[in-house]
Amino acid sequence: MKHVSSRDNALLRRLRRLATSARERRESGLTLLDGVHLVEAAEAAGVILQELLVSEHGVQQPEIDALLARHPGVAVTLVPDTLFAHASPVDSPSGVLALIATPPETDASLSSSVIVLDGVQDPGNLGTILRTAAAAGVGDALLTTGCAQAWAPRTLRAGMGGHFRLHIRERVDVSTALAGFQGRIVATGVGANARSLYETELTGAVVWLFGAEGAGLSPAVAALATDVVTIPMPGEVESLNVGAAAAVCLFEQVRQRLGTALNR
Amino acid sequence: MKHVSSRDNALLRRLRRLATSARERRESGLTLLDGVHLVEAAEAAGVILQELLVSEHGVQQPEIDALLARHPGVAVTLVPDTLFAHASPVDSPSGVLALIATPPETDASLSSSVIVLDGVQDPGNLGTILRTAAAAGVGDALLTTGCAQAWAPRTLRAGMGGHFRLHIRERVDVSTALAGFQGRIVATGVGANARSLYETELTGAVVWLFGAEGAGLSPAVAALATDVVTIPMPGEVESLNVGAAAAVCLFEQVRQRLGTALNR
Repeated sequence: MKHVSSRDNALLRRLRRLATSARERRESGLTLLDGVHLVEAAEAAGVILQELLVSEHGVQQPEIDALLARHPGVAVTLVPDTLFAHASPVDSPSGVLALIATPPETDASLSSSVIVLDGVQDPGNLGTILRTAAAAGVGDALLTTGCAQAWAPRTLRAGMGGHFRLHIRERVDVSTALAGFQGRIVATGVGANARSLYETELTGAVVWLFGAEGAGLSPAVAALATDVVTIPMPGEVESLNVGAAAAVCLFEQVRQRLGTALNR
Repeated sequence: MKHVSSRDNALLRRLRRLATSARERRESGLTLLDGVHLVEAAEAAGVILQELLVSEHGVQQPEIDALLARHPGVAVTLVPDTLFAHASPVDSPSGVLALIATPPETDASLSSSVIVLDGVQDPGNLGTILRTAAAAGVGDALLTTGCAQAWAPRTLRAGMGGHFRLHIRERVDVSTALAGFQGRIVATGVGANARSLYETELTGAVVWLFGAEGAGLSPAVAALATDVVTIPMPGEVESLNVGAAAAVCLFEQVRQRLGTALNR
């Protein structure tokens, strides 16, 4: 384990750039995982840890100690808590930070459960939706250029490891990506051709289209929908947060695929 | 319309205190609504606007102009944009701010759909759950002392007006509040006595117990549950964000109460 106590250290400067610059992350193909939970999720997915940074406070925690012990071949740098906070991408740093290569995008064909996220700009919202999608067994997440960065540290934190259970593609041209998709392409909304979510058959292959808070789907993406579904809202409130709407839709799909039977 | 251009103005100082101090809001029984959407939701619920503050930029917007025209009896103060931002409780001020009395708490008996929020500390999460609950037709929201303030400006903003469609009670002793409740009291979780959400009858009266991110329910609240339900997660991710879990549960209740019939 190497000790560093100067901000001018090359590794710290590199981590700091990755923590603060979306461009740096994109161009280098690298990102940072803050916290044992995220690092464990990456390990479980077979992601290789390139470097580990630990704080003096962190190294005393048993779960961080155990993490270091599992990776004897990975370079570990120990820094004072204040320097750790300087390099960390999050507001409440955990004490351990891993440098990883962003998992490569696949060009395999789409699974039978896909989400398209169009212009979801808030990293917290985006991460929460990826977490929900992973829990619901979604296979692919396609993000348009208007979205926050999927592998940004704040998105990763909200994603709670869900990132590593999905195939994520960023800056996607949705029309091209969905060409030849055999199944429903479903937008949420209202209108003459909209049907209740609960009266829509979701056991086959489905692509879900979720748009930005406020603005909704861009016209080009909305035009790809084969179905428009409405979430019935007895409370007469006009809309749900996009994360809540995604949770309702994706778990209605889970319910239907499980084939459970209450209250027909 | 009164013009003010000094930070030392008594009204501005008062609004600034309400914007920044939870204690000031609680002790005065007042809060601030930022933006036309929230003010309209309050109007629709019959809430009286005590004062209106508008920015020079805001007063030129047709929807803010229309809002002022609907309330000829309410004192309006016009301030430069920088002063408005100083008084506003939110990061991206909208241009109109209303001072209101926090709606009084009811001690009426509970409705047939109730949520208990135990230690939900993040105002954004709390507001999103209140918005979801209002959309799902929930009647009552009971908050423990560990929760963020329901009527804090950040909670209100995330709530998108849902606050005005619910009976909200804060700093509730849950055991006392649920004494005599005739119906299921449902916690989400796992364990030997847990049942699938989708195999749990939810058409009768239900109280939902939702706990803090991470820590979950406090033991005293968890002990009140008559049922523990599990949200099936095919993706093998260990948990959902509390807002996503609430959306899934509350809209499964909506679905069952609608009695819709697909994929039994």
